[in-house]
Amino acid sequence: MVLGGGTGNFAVLRGLKKYPLELSAIVSMADDGGSTGILRDELGVLPPGDVRQCLVALSNSSRLMRSLVNYRFENGGLGGHSFGNLLLSALEKVTGSFEKAVEEMGRILVIKGKVIPVTTHQVRLKMILNNRKILEGEGEIYLSQEIDQGYKSIYLEPYPKANPLALEEIKHADLVVIGPGGLHTSLIPNLLVDGVSKALRESDAKIVFVVNLMNRRGQTTGFKVSNYLSEMVRYIGKDIFDYILVNDQSPPQELIEVYAEEGDLVVNDLSESRIIQAPLLGELREEAKTDLIQRNLIRHDAHKLAKELIAIVNHL
Amino acid sequence: MVLGGGTGNFAVLRGLKKYPLELSAIVSMADDGGSTGILRDELGVLPPGDVRQCLVALSNSSRLMRSLVNYRFENGGLGGHSFGNLLLSALEKVTGSFEKAVEEMGRILVIKGKVIPVTTHQVRLKMILNNRKILEGEGEIYLSQEIDQGYKSIYLEPYPKANPLALEEIKHADLVVIGPGGLHTSLIPNLLVDGVSKALRESDAKIVFVVNLMNRRGQTTGFKVSNYLSEMVRYIGKDIFDYILVNDQSPPQELIEVYAEEGDLVVNDLSESRIIQAPLLGELREEAKTDLIQRNLIRHDAHKLAKELIAIVNHL
Repeated sequence: MVLGGGTGNFAVLRGLKKYPLELSAIVSMADDGGSTGILRDELGVLPPGDVRQCLVALSNSSRLMRSLVNYRFENGGLGGHSFGNLLLSALEKVTGSFEKAVEEMGRILVIKGKVIPVTTHQVRLKMILNNRKILEGEGEIYLSQEIDQGYKSIYLEPYPKANPLALEEIKHADLVVIGPGGLHTSLIPNLLVDGVSKALRESDAKIVFVVNLMNRRGQTTGFKVSNYLSEMVRYIGKDIFDYILVNDQSPPQELIEVYAEEGDLVVNDLSESRIIQAPLLGELREEAKTDLIQRNLIRHDAHKLAKELIAIVNHL
Repeated sequence: MVLGGGTGNFAVLRGLKKYPLELSAIVSMADDGGSTGILRDELGVLPPGDVRQCLVALSNSSRLMRSLVNYRFENGGLGGHSFGNLLLSALEKVTGSFEKAVEEMGRILVIKGKVIPVTTHQVRLKMILNNRKILEGEGEIYLSQEIDQGYKSIYLEPYPKANPLALEEIKHADLVVIGPGGLHTSLIPNLLVDGVSKALRESDAKIVFVVNLMNRRGQTTGFKVSNYLSEMVRYIGKDIFDYILVNDQSPPQELIEVYAEEGDLVVNDLSESRIIQAPLLGELREEAKTDLIQRNLIRHDAHKLAKELIAIVNHL
């Protein structure tokens, strides 16, 4: 069982897909940026973006279908919309329910496993900063450069009940993988849904925290593994983590320099036995080397991640 | 083999789908109204609308898939777009070719038979009226109320070569069904493509003309069967029709009154042996009776049409 938000989950799900496991991805519903935000506002649908990414990660369909679902229109009134978001929103309209839409799209994409929205209520993520400024929406929070100056609270409005299917999955899972993902925009939003933290505290599952590779400047600047852990424990209400998976591989110096603008590397400051250190970085593809400005060059490698997680599963 | 444009083809294709025939639909590429026109302008794609309708007519997929493809977004930047049009346009972008997109969508919709664009060039339909006014685009021609005052010429710009696959189909077909459909907006545009009229003249296929039920006010006002026939012969360059299928069933008086604004019934003024008269009207559905303003209440019945066409096939 994998709990998370957007792009972070992608590598975990894609890596685990190849192994004989029953996979479920529980997905945050706080997304409201870009194409997803426009669809929420204009069509009143639930946010398709993160769900789409999880569906694609678990998809066994043709490369063409996956390219289609990830295709973004470039011009005009459609500009910026991902086709998969439009598909999910149209399915929601035609079936009358977001859950049915996710199920149908799973069928179209021949997915392995299940994708489960953490809640099926329309919610907005909000944050009140120490300077009393209120950030409205995940999009605004994602772009803020003041979060590392401290915040008073983060919450979903209205306070939503969890999707019962999500709580069932957490209850019956053998292993729960949390992260990687944006701390305030992907991970914490799941924990703000009524019932999720309680279910995690009460689950018999072994729980793994996959710590992010990079900090986001202005948000988690200078965060070490212990900072991530204590933030998670704060929202879950208990230190439930059996394993903490941390990358120990250094990216090439040239990439660190490119990234310096965006954030710094997460350093491990813990030496507990539950810490698993391993080289988890994705290879820099040749075509990407010529365009270092491209995002997400420092990212988890799906196969390396999966190997470590499977080693844990085999010890259960 | 069925040659035509938009909604007119739908009943023919849907009716014939149930019989053990090899079906091919050759589709006009002149459409530029509504959702299709916006996609052409903004994305530079070929017109998806008419192709979409033929694909749905031949589809054996689930009712949900067909509803999805026909679904129209209601609000915002997406307002008015049919989902199927977006699917076809995204497939064109991802595969790099309109023909591949049509093929893939045929696979997704599990179609029986083939849907073939009459040309794969970007063209506009234009018309010069007797009063020297130039109508640009199928959308403008469709809305004009002056066409029955006479026109000097109708042409596609730039003058396009036919899709070789379309010419092959015409050459090797046993039966070619032309119509029903808008005379100037669906039927004639196919004949304006370089090679199509010649292929029709030279084909050994038996050729059936399915005459429209209604005239369109301001366009074909007062047209009788002989007028439709002579217009077709004018563009084909030869009277190639072996059968002319004409409806002889009267619609309910209340519907004729509702339609009086839009146009009059097509009357048969020919008594040749190739004329086949039959009751071809679709039943008025109960739910439609309460909303007589709804369009296309006087339309061909798919099953009745197919029965007459199959009788012709069985005589070949």
